[in-house]
Amino acid sequence: MLQTITWTGTAARLLDQTKLPTQTTYVDITDEKQMWDAIKRLVIRGAPAIGVAAAFGVYLGLRHSTADSLKDFDQELDQVCAYLATSRPTAVNLFWALDRQKHVSQETRKQGSRTEEQMVQKIIQRLLAEALTMIDEDNRICRSLGQYGLPLLPTFPDRPTNILTHCNAGGLATVQFGTALAPIYVGAEQGRRFHIYADETRPLLQGSRITAFELQAAGIPATVICDNMAATVMSQGKVDAIIVGTDRVAANGDVANKIGTLNVAILAKYYNLPFYVAAPTSSIDLTLPTGDQIPIEQRDPAEITHALGRQTAPTNINTFNPAFDITPANLVTAIITEHGIALPPFTDSLKKLCDQR
Amino acid sequence: MLQTITWTGTAARLLDQTKLPTQTTYVDITDEKQMWDAIKRLVIRGAPAIGVAAAFGVYLGLRHSTADSLKDFDQELDQVCAYLATSRPTAVNLFWALDRQKHVSQETRKQGSRTEEQMVQKIIQRLLAEALTMIDEDNRICRSLGQYGLPLLPTFPDRPTNILTHCNAGGLATVQFGTALAPIYVGAEQGRRFHIYADETRPLLQGSRITAFELQAAGIPATVICDNMAATVMSQGKVDAIIVGTDRVAANGDVANKIGTLNVAILAKYYNLPFYVAAPTSSIDLTLPTGDQIPIEQRDPAEITHALGRQTAPTNINTFNPAFDITPANLVTAIITEHGIALPPFTDSLKKLCDQR
Repeated sequence: MLQTITWTGTAARLLDQTKLPTQTTYVDITDEKQMWDAIKRLVIRGAPAIGVAAAFGVYLGLRHSTADSLKDFDQELDQVCAYLATSRPTAVNLFWALDRQKHVSQETRKQGSRTEEQMVQKIIQRLLAEALTMIDEDNRICRSLGQYGLPLLPTFPDRPTNILTHCNAGGLATVQFGTALAPIYVGAEQGRRFHIYADETRPLLQGSRITAFELQAAGIPATVICDNMAATVMSQGKVDAIIVGTDRVAANGDVANKIGTLNVAILAKYYNLPFYVAAPTSSIDLTLPTGDQIPIEQRDPAEITHALGRQTAPTNINTFNPAFDITPANLVTAIITEHGIALPPFTDSLKKLCDQR
Repeated sequence: MLQTITWTGTAARLLDQTKLPTQTTYVDITDEKQMWDAIKRLVIRGAPAIGVAAAFGVYLGLRHSTADSLKDFDQELDQVCAYLATSRPTAVNLFWALDRQKHVSQETRKQGSRTEEQMVQKIIQRLLAEALTMIDEDNRICRSLGQYGLPLLPTFPDRPTNILTHCNAGGLATVQFGTALAPIYVGAEQGRRFHIYADETRPLLQGSRITAFELQAAGIPATVICDNMAATVMSQGKVDAIIVGTDRVAANGDVANKIGTLNVAILAKYYNLPFYVAAPTSSIDLTLPTGDQIPIEQRDPAEITHALGRQTAPTNINTFNPAFDITPANLVTAIITEHGIALPPFTDSLKKLCDQR
């Protein structure tokens, strides 16, 4: 299986996702400027993976620090964090990871040290340890999510289980296992057979570029379809269940995810197919009563009018290009988390699961 | 309004649709070889327009004929028709138009003439007249379809009527008015205000490339969306009705149309929006009991994997690329024809309308 980020001992090694799906290349990131650039250019993407990358970025930006006072070091830390925060200002996990490293810095000094200089070096080592811990955590969360999700997927004696997914909530959005695809990978380890329909996911084609790529790399049969073919494959009995990821789940179970998810959820309802959402509890926001409170970013019209750089719509035509849509909770069969399965009514079940985090 | 094909007096002038949406250029076609090439290269496309183009192609291929016997002329006619038939072998209207010109040739000779040589020249003139008649007929059918369809579209005192359409069943698929867009154009002439959501329609983007272009040219506000955004615009109350075209309607009202139509129909049902199909009676096939009998062509995987020439899916990935889908009759609110509106149960209503053709 591909890994989006690993630690070589001296560098953070990133799978260069800008080169997918035609090339599998890795880049070794050795300082915070390179990491800023990698996050900015989407060399690494996906909320959990960005968080881990940022945590390494903090370490890489400070590992050669010669600060001899905590005051100086804190200033450097603040600078590095502020700088990394500008790489992708809408990524919540980025800020969460930077805050976490700042917290590490504060907690470590409580342990005491002979000199401030020694303390600075101790903190730097802890920043690396924390980034490595975040890799482990991400793997544990994704694997647990996969283990809970797997029994939801039906088995057939004579054929693989057919799953349809939208966008990429696979390993390449996390460190390794992914969220929506975690049940597939965990199942494959246990000998379960799957075949995945990957919606290509316009406008940015994460489904064909990334999901299909990582499934192929993992040896799991996949078929790429245009988003508008989902109804046809469902109507022909070729889909047993749908699993998607999410950017944010509201307290009532409304789900924000990549544009097009709502379409798939309505089609699933029409064809009586289970529609599952894979959501690490970190993406469940109990402070939002419903999906109506989730802001939907409008993206660049050129993503629609200039597909892959070539103009495919008339000059000055109007477009509507929301990044996400909101799938109402009543279209969601279950929400799969690393602490278990939430079933409707989600207001109760999500709260219970989140209490465990 | 744009016209896909006009007669200049010496040439068939075609709007070059391969240059859309960035350039509005016309090509003058003066012989059958150029017409073959224009049909083949999709300079002109859309079933009705291809039929008219082929009819002109027959005339252009024979207008300089020096045949002095009907036998020789018939041989030339057969050759020209057989040649044009190879330009786009799956286009039913192409064959229908060629047969119609052969029929004209047979009918004309019944009128008699002094010499066979004169008769040949008379037939040649009739071939031109028939092609011109076909332009008129197409305009009449589309306009009539538009007049029947218009009253189905709700009006609002304070805002335009919002229509969502899929693919291109507009003027650029016919001579001028289109089928699905005919009610819009007829309404616009009468001062009705519309705003159209054009599904871009992957994989070949006829919605963004062609529908958006012709609406813009006609001064009708349009917004291009990716196919997977249709649910979102519907959920936000931004759509009042859906109109699509069709390639073929079965006797029970099942509708074959561009892939993605079924998705839209299911979404319309979910949001309680009327889903209309514009179908000239020539596209209604009463010999097919249901849509199950309509063969669905699978197209080149490269349309999905190499969007606009650039590889966007992994090498050797599997794809599923049906050209059409079948929307079951129970999702269709009404079928609009040039002879009136067919309402469910379609088995009765379609038959009645077809009896008038």
